[in-house]
Amino acid sequence: MQETDEELDALLNKMLPTFEEKMPFNKLLGIQIVSLHLNEVKIRFDMREELIGNFVHRILHGGVIASVLDVAGGMIAIANSFQQRREHLTESERMQGIDKTGTIDMRIDYLRPGRGDYFIATATILRSGRKVAVTRMELHNDENLLIAVGTGCYLVG
Amino acid sequence: MQETDEELDALLNKMLPTFEEKMPFNKLLGIQIVSLHLNEVKIRFDMREELIGNFVHRILHGGVIASVLDVAGGMIAIANSFQQRREHLTESERMQGIDKTGTIDMRIDYLRPGRGDYFIATATILRSGRKVAVTRMELHNDENLLIAVGTGCYLVG
Amino acid sequence: MQETDEELDALLNKMLPTFEEKMPFNKLLGIQIVSLHLNEVKIRFDMREELIGNFVHRILHGGVIASVLDVAGGMIAIANSFQQRREHLTESERMQGIDKTGTIDMRIDYLRPGRGDYFIATATILRSGRKVAVTRMELHNDENLLIAVGTGCYLVG
Amino acid sequence: MQETDEELDALLNKMLPTFEEKMPFNKLLGIQIVSLHLNEVKIRFDMREELIGNFVHRILHGGVIASVLDVAGGMIAIANSFQQRREHLTESERMQGIDKTGTIDMRIDYLRPGRGDYFIATATILRSGRKVAVTRMELHNDENLLIAVGTGCYLVG
Repeated sequence: MQETDEELDALLNKMLPTFEEKMPFNKLLGIQIVSLHLNEVKIRFDMREELIGNFVHRILHGGVIASVLDVAGGMIAIANSFQQRREHLTESERMQGIDKTGTIDMRIDYLRPGRGDYFIATATILRSGRKVAVTRMELHNDENLLIAVGTGCYLVG
Repeated sequence: MQETDEELDALLNKMLPTFEEKMPFNKLLGIQIVSLHLNEVKIRFDMREELIGNFVHRILHGGVIASVLDVAGGMIAIANSFQQRREHLTESERMQGIDKTGTIDMRIDYLRPGRGDYFIATATILRSGRKVAVTRMELHNDENLLIAVGTGCYLVG
Repeated sequence: MQETDEELDALLNKMLPTFEEKMPFNKLLGIQIVSLHLNEVKIRFDMREELIGNFVHRILHGGVIASVLDVAGGMIAIANSFQQRREHLTESERMQGIDKTGTIDMRIDYLRPGRGDYFIATATILRSGRKVAVTRMELHNDENLLIAVGTGCYLVG
Repeated sequence: MQETDEELDALLNKMLPTFEEKMPFNKLLGIQIVSLHLNEVKIRFDMREELIGNFVHRILHGGVIASVLDVAGGMIAIANSFQQRREHLTESERMQGIDKTGTIDMRIDYLRPGRGDYFIATATILRSGRKVAVTRMELHNDENLLIAVGTGCYLVG
């Protein structure tokens, strides 16, 4: 017997926020999960003084953008791994899988200066597998301008 | 008349630290410049609770690694642009060039878990030009283990 | 006085196929231009024995995929550079610009095995500039399955 | 009982050339294996009219460079997977592993125009694992000038 998309989706929404809270650097970035599904994750963060990279133009540091896109990519890779293992696993077994997920590589393309009051990062799956997931990420600002795109490759548990 | 390597090197060491101090996110990361030459930059940061990505394994957040490698790549791209424009420019003209430098794209490969008391990021030039510089970056930990490598492409002023 | 999109589009369609014919490796790949506009290029090639990388599974060589995506990216980068320079240039000046266009870097993600009777590569612009263009490329097979995606960064003349 | 480096090295040198011959596109490129060890592979190809991308400057097509670097990366990934599985496997089991190896993603940086009478591609391992290998590739010309570098991520059998 296998878990349905709805069951996995619920499980994901129960487990992941707790997990995220325990990542100190994510708290520093001020990441909030907007929506979390098996096929798409959306996270938000607000512009803050500490996230600025260029004091003249007051734009986001490129590293902030890379960090947030990596978080979004990692979350959708985890979501995808839930779909790959539909058998009824315990919460502890799921947590082990989450814990084993890690970024192998990532490419970020910076398209426009990171200006805005808040930003939305989204991630979707490009390639799904039991060993490896490849993900596409995008960062938009509060005017829905595309600021950066990314592609990530994740080892999944 | 053109500036020599030594003159450019001195100029770089005078200008860049000031510039770096004014980048709030770099302060958050705790970045310190170890050495800064036209051909290589070396920066250091210490492990701190806030930079942790995985609370179980207590390793660096992938975004911290990407951020620091991007800073190192950007600095060597600026250093390289000094070499491309040897004519005697005013400090203000040099600053404009620095200010126009921006990351176009970056790839990070995560090779080993980011464990250590402190980390050293180095950057060198792969491709030098008046419009674009391509850079190679590496992150080692305090035991000189290679944690991550990166390649960046920068628009130069 | 500036050239309109229609005029540039016509110029592009007049110049580029001739140029492409003179690239021996493109002939080896069997590349045909399906459509060519300022905002999107579409090229096609047929599966042939020589393009196979894996003799057991009879799928495209990864290098063929990278080659075709690079050609598509380069063409849209040239098209974009036409838009960046709307002033009435001579054909010879345009040709010089085309000739100076070159790939700086490229990332290819291989998503599915390259099976099919023919393949369509498309390219669009992610970042437009007078110095550098960043492009997105996709390869679909004859059943419209997404085989590979790519991102390229091009120096433009 | 496990196979030694020397035994694995010998096995590799016995199996891989045969395998390579059966890849039609590699024959088209004119790839020859110069040396093949568990830790480094070196392959060579000669400049030929059909490999030219730019008829004015008579330089290698970017796709040729990407193709050859992908072949070198794939070979070192296979070599590395032999080290990961030292148990005595049959030739048929080894062949299955080879056959399952595939490129997940690749980044190529084009540093200098591809001019030369012949070219040497080398590949080494950056990250070694039972599921995934990350590789570094370089292309030099006959004057030992660095023409291009690459990074690849390979799924291993």
